[in-house]
Amino acid sequence: MIEQLFAKLESAYPEMVDIRRYLHQHPELSFHEHKTTAYIAAFYEELGVDIRTNVGGNGIVATIKGAHPGETVALRADFDALQIHEDNDLPYKSTVPGVMHACGHDGHTATLLVLGKVLHEMRDSLHGNVVLIHQHAEELTPGGAKPMIEDGCLDGVDVIFGTHLWATAPTGTIQYRVGPFMAAADRFELTIKGAGGHGAQPHKCKDSILVASQLVTNLQQIVSRHVNPIDAAVLSIGSFVSDNAFNVIADQAALKGTVRTFKESVRQTIAEDIERIIKGVTLASDVDYDYTFHRGYPPVVNHEQEMQFVVDTAKSVAEVTTVEEIDPEMGAEDFAYYLENVKGAFFFTGAKAPETEYAYPHHHPKFDFDENAMLIAAKVLGKATCEYLKNEKTVSEKVTK
Amino acid sequence: MIEQLFAKLESAYPEMVDIRRYLHQHPELSFHEHKTTAYIAAFYEELGVDIRTNVGGNGIVATIKGAHPGETVALRADFDALQIHEDNDLPYKSTVPGVMHACGHDGHTATLLVLGKVLHEMRDSLHGNVVLIHQHAEELTPGGAKPMIEDGCLDGVDVIFGTHLWATAPTGTIQYRVGPFMAAADRFELTIKGAGGHGAQPHKCKDSILVASQLVTNLQQIVSRHVNPIDAAVLSIGSFVSDNAFNVIADQAALKGTVRTFKESVRQTIAEDIERIIKGVTLASDVDYDYTFHRGYPPVVNHEQEMQFVVDTAKSVAEVTTVEEIDPEMGAEDFAYYLENVKGAFFFTGAKAPETEYAYPHHHPKFDFDENAMLIAAKVLGKATCEYLKNEKTVSEKVTK
Amino acid sequence: MIEQLFAKLESAYPEMVDIRRYLHQHPELSFHEHKTTAYIAAFYEELGVDIRTNVGGNGIVATIKGAHPGETVALRADFDALQIHEDNDLPYKSTVPGVMHACGHDGHTATLLVLGKVLHEMRDSLHGNVVLIHQHAEELTPGGAKPMIEDGCLDGVDVIFGTHLWATAPTGTIQYRVGPFMAAADRFELTIKGAGGHGAQPHKCKDSILVASQLVTNLQQIVSRHVNPIDAAVLSIGSFVSDNAFNVIADQAALKGTVRTFKESVRQTIAEDIERIIKGVTLASDVDYDYTFHRGYPPVVNHEQEMQFVVDTAKSVAEVTTVEEIDPEMGAEDFAYYLENVKGAFFFTGAKAPETEYAYPHHHPKFDFDENAMLIAAKVLGKATCEYLKNEKTVSEKVTK
Amino acid sequence: MIEQLFAKLESAYPEMVDIRRYLHQHPELSFHEHKTTAYIAAFYEELGVDIRTNVGGNGIVATIKGAHPGETVALRADFDALQIHEDNDLPYKSTVPGVMHACGHDGHTATLLVLGKVLHEMRDSLHGNVVLIHQHAEELTPGGAKPMIEDGCLDGVDVIFGTHLWATAPTGTIQYRVGPFMAAADRFELTIKGAGGHGAQPHKCKDSILVASQLVTNLQQIVSRHVNPIDAAVLSIGSFVSDNAFNVIADQAALKGTVRTFKESVRQTIAEDIERIIKGVTLASDVDYDYTFHRGYPPVVNHEQEMQFVVDTAKSVAEVTTVEEIDPEMGAEDFAYYLENVKGAFFFTGAKAPETEYAYPHHHPKFDFDENAMLIAAKVLGKATCEYLKNEKTVSEKVTK
Repeated sequence: MIEQLFAKLESAYPEMVDIRRYLHQHPELSFHEHKTTAYIAAFYEELGVDIRTNVGGNGIVATIKGAHPGETVALRADFDALQIHEDNDLPYKSTVPGVMHACGHDGHTATLLVLGKVLHEMRDSLHGNVVLIHQHAEELTPGGAKPMIEDGCLDGVDVIFGTHLWATAPTGTIQYRVGPFMAAADRFELTIKGAGGHGAQPHKCKDSILVASQLVTNLQQIVSRHVNPIDAAVLSIGSFVSDNAFNVIADQAALKGTVRTFKESVRQTIAEDIERIIKGVTLASDVDYDYTFHRGYPPVVNHEQEMQFVVDTAKSVAEVTTVEEIDPEMGAEDFAYYLENVKGAFFFTGAKAPETEYAYPHHHPKFDFDENAMLIAAKVLGKATCEYLKNEKTVSEKVTK
Repeated sequence: MIEQLFAKLESAYPEMVDIRRYLHQHPELSFHEHKTTAYIAAFYEELGVDIRTNVGGNGIVATIKGAHPGETVALRADFDALQIHEDNDLPYKSTVPGVMHACGHDGHTATLLVLGKVLHEMRDSLHGNVVLIHQHAEELTPGGAKPMIEDGCLDGVDVIFGTHLWATAPTGTIQYRVGPFMAAADRFELTIKGAGGHGAQPHKCKDSILVASQLVTNLQQIVSRHVNPIDAAVLSIGSFVSDNAFNVIADQAALKGTVRTFKESVRQTIAEDIERIIKGVTLASDVDYDYTFHRGYPPVVNHEQEMQFVVDTAKSVAEVTTVEEIDPEMGAEDFAYYLENVKGAFFFTGAKAPETEYAYPHHHPKFDFDENAMLIAAKVLGKATCEYLKNEKTVSEKVTK
Repeated sequence: MIEQLFAKLESAYPEMVDIRRYLHQHPELSFHEHKTTAYIAAFYEELGVDIRTNVGGNGIVATIKGAHPGETVALRADFDALQIHEDNDLPYKSTVPGVMHACGHDGHTATLLVLGKVLHEMRDSLHGNVVLIHQHAEELTPGGAKPMIEDGCLDGVDVIFGTHLWATAPTGTIQYRVGPFMAAADRFELTIKGAGGHGAQPHKCKDSILVASQLVTNLQQIVSRHVNPIDAAVLSIGSFVSDNAFNVIADQAALKGTVRTFKESVRQTIAEDIERIIKGVTLASDVDYDYTFHRGYPPVVNHEQEMQFVVDTAKSVAEVTTVEEIDPEMGAEDFAYYLENVKGAFFFTGAKAPETEYAYPHHHPKFDFDENAMLIAAKVLGKATCEYLKNEKTVSEKVTK
Repeated sequence: MIEQLFAKLESAYPEMVDIRRYLHQHPELSFHEHKTTAYIAAFYEELGVDIRTNVGGNGIVATIKGAHPGETVALRADFDALQIHEDNDLPYKSTVPGVMHACGHDGHTATLLVLGKVLHEMRDSLHGNVVLIHQHAEELTPGGAKPMIEDGCLDGVDVIFGTHLWATAPTGTIQYRVGPFMAAADRFELTIKGAGGHGAQPHKCKDSILVASQLVTNLQQIVSRHVNPIDAAVLSIGSFVSDNAFNVIADQAALKGTVRTFKESVRQTIAEDIERIIKGVTLASDVDYDYTFHRGYPPVVNHEQEMQFVVDTAKSVAEVTTVEEIDPEMGAEDFAYYLENVKGAFFFTGAKAPETEYAYPHHHPKFDFDENAMLIAAKVLGKATCEYLKNEKTVSEKVTK
């Protein structure tokens, strides 16, 4: 069965490339993916695959029912693009000024569509079902995963697998981590509201720039002192704006920042600490403030047995030359929500061609990836799906010994 | 003679008001005062007063030669306006959008023109000469005073007097200070040049916002620790801009600030301390910086005997109800340059009408002043000029006992 | 009369020196001046001068009634020593280990005793009375002045004069200032109460050293931002103690500091700001604190006419070569309390001998002063007293024209 | 053979307890363990075991040669006590005032002595040799491990095992971690050398307390910004001493601190960052400093296969109820040096009795541990030793599948 799967995927690889390049030329921003959605729907409708559209927004869920009873495996691909103006000189360059598939979601979608087509063709051999989750809006909180789950995309699902093409790891490499893999990413905004005035009369003013500066300095203690050194955490103030003439005392100063964590307890502690520090530092200088903390995606925490299952599967795919457990990534992914609801695993599929010396990072205007990685991703996800469904063993038994 | 002077000024008061209102309707920005200059020149030319135009830029110098030999007194009025959009509902409101006489320089000019006209009429009684300095660009460093002096406006001048209409002090009040009266005002600009990157990867970046914040905090020690507590000094960071997304580490942060002092030694020390602190704080975090320090106007330091002479004169003017020595003002004035070159005195002429409950401060879109104060200013300056010239006594003898 | 006064003082100068040297050899700490008190009392009793002992503690008040009716002038000298071990090699070196007259109070007392003796001898010529206030405990708050006043030492007094021998100004110089002359000196103590623990477990502790350090840094804003730049103010943290092993997180940190001001409003503002900053900074890090603020001596504020009267008097004393108005001194003196209760003036009498190249500052183990300055002080104080009493003119009339 | 080993250890358990209690009563400080050394030497000499004394100082190495050829396993126990005054009420309480076995090294030594005795008795069955390393001075850097290694204690050794009795984990628990297990612990001392003076004259001084406070605050950025969030690191300032009167500016301030890391690269980076920050912050305020950084023990990094071997062994010991991989400990151990030289593993043996509600932490005056844990430690170490030696398999083969 796996031989058949791989052969079909190899045959369909040119189609995969075509799809990816078409999507790359027609990127759409998060929550505005209307043409992409129509494209995906048309693809499945032509095949006669059962789909549900407008799932939790612009999401699409396609379901392939195997001929034999069994469990249900979900696979997920996201399809939104970024507000970046492409700076590549490629035949399939973005045709939309200022919008670009600079994170590989075009590849994710092409991979899943072709894999879905192949699994649909092989549905008579399947023991159980496959749910293909085409998700909108991964790039922008609150993201598409949460509303799709709330709209039932995981109903009846036993396990979920997903991957991210990773342009900075060599093609042939699979990177993973048991447990916390990608970080929770929260965001906050703060305005210090002092009292402005003439730069020569500090005693008649309340200097917002000084207070905001004290705050930035004071906030360092959260990571340096409040968090267990063993736990990874980041607090960054990315923006500090108090744009005035040189000879005034600043009336207001606006800060924006991000918090990255892997444990809910650490995440909570930091959120509380930030607010307490803001309260204290503004009290010290007798100024007001506006503050909002926006919880973003939770951490991506891979389930041990499911992750091990994918690792074992990946090791058995010929094109996979390296399977390595890596340090947690401080970046975020709303795949996290799926793993909070069902068992599953998320991993990176290396997508840097051997001939590429320097790979531009994700979200860069010159971002691109090795399309061969799509075939590898399809094989790992496809084999994992088929193997998972093929018998009645419990998950832990499925982990090879 | 003083009776005649005062009578003539009183008769000419309506003209003074007309001139002021005309100028108020036609404000021009510093270094761009072409119509104003033409207006002033035409005024003197019609009277037959000898003038020199384009002095040090847009400056005009009118000279009245008395019939009798004697010393030379200079009087100065500035005539530039500000980049402020007037928010008053007045018949003589500014007709130039975004430009406004919001500091009373229209009043200064009207006062000096009418006083000049009167002194010209009385030139047969004058012992010595009067130089009327109509100065451009007081509001914007490097200012008009310096180039006008370099272009000879003080040649042959023995003493200079000047006043500023002061909208927040009641009409009838003269405010002054022997010695340091208004501050030196310097300006600096600084860019912290770290290394930007993703907000989740602080170890691969150099956080410019943190370094700039440490700097703002550290710079407080200059005033709190380095300057003699007896000496007044202010260091304000008026602007802090690092405008980025919330989830980055800031590549750069730009600061602007001002320094106010009264003593050259303090001014020097602070300039050196700022640079050393920048060096130290950036070294600590291993980042680069660009820094420029611009020396602005020096302090206005009134000469003791000349100031006392004006004080005594003011006390003898009926409309002057209060003459008070006040604390130094942290604001700056390029009248300072004249006082570095010749003896003289500068003072404030209260210009808040008795019926005004709240006077908007200078540089406010709703700024206005009591026009009666112009007549008081003209009398004090006019009497001081005539008295100063009328005999051969040395300056110190002129100070009443 | 003044000739007679000066002649008598000159004759008594050797006695003045003897007294000073005797006192120098027998210094006593503040509030423990029992032998000194007995010495002073014996001196006056032998002369038959009326004295009151144990005034407000160890104070002594001697009263000389003039033969003629008139006003009452008080003169004050303090007599306590310091907890300093003398490091001079002098024949009249301190005989008490660890205690030293290192601030010249021995000289003050010798001057006043001899001046008192002379005025007593001249009492038949005096119009009015002289009250000689020998004050204990100037060096240590709450000081001796306050309880002596509460115990009536100023009852019936019209004016008070006092001086401090000033070892760093040349003999022959009188230094003064109208208005604020010496600072108010307050004191505070603060303990930051965090939660100690192992240096490798910051997340289980609350780091008192970090919080105290943030506080020291944050407190700088009081002088740099909250106080009018025109007003002198100092806030110094003199002591920071958290004495632990290198590998712990500090449980507590103890700070001590001083505040110097010249205006009650500034003094109040600073006291409030300190406490608010402590509250804010400790809140930010969620730690507790103990805090006490001790108001010390108020500022010494010289009365304008009385100060001018002393200045005029000093200028007329032959040995006085320079009379100069100086910047305010940030040091404190409980003479301040007398000036809050009656009119008067306090000044410095230069006491650095011409041959002395470097004068050790007050409170130094090598402190000493030029004894000739005692005679100058006696002449200025004596002449001021006699002149003040000699006629019926109001104080303002007494100021020379 | 293992049955025999365990039976012998159980029989000898009372002797183990006696030895431990004797040592507990006679604690000796690091580098001064002379009686303890004599005791250990006498124990082995009586048995006829070959020993070498004064190894690298006070260390003792006993060697048991098995009857059969094979590899060499080293076991290590430390024997120094701490400068802590025991606050327990026990029959075997310390008899030396101010010195106490408050870290369980008495138990380590008793365990190893009895295990050594048993292995000596079983030497005819042993394939290979056992080296018993009795190490002095674990508590005080530079420690005893390093000089013992330099003096040859590891010569011929193939693998080393060691354990620490862990009073806060329940008896029956074995805690371990593959890879970094305990931290590197470095130490630094810093004196800020400003310029002292009167608290009212900041401009004549350089405020050491302010500079040191800025430094403590600034140093937080090392952990919060410079270290990869994934890497654990701690920098704590444990001591800050500038003990002066309240009314001075501090001349000097002395800081002491510790750094904890797990990776050499992080350790290096932090050491460099500290010095650069000191340079920068002192430059900013123009003060001098003295600084020394003392490298302490490196991290304890367990070798993967050897650690897995011990884990498997522990799981097979009946009294061991839990074997758990734990987060790294930020505490330090000079066992680290052995693991830098030969393969091996170090682990914690839980020693909190079931009936104990609260276990006082190590280094506490009330520290004690459950003596039953010694028998468990002996069994795990003994079985690991015998199993390791019993055949010719490579280490990786010895790890059970």
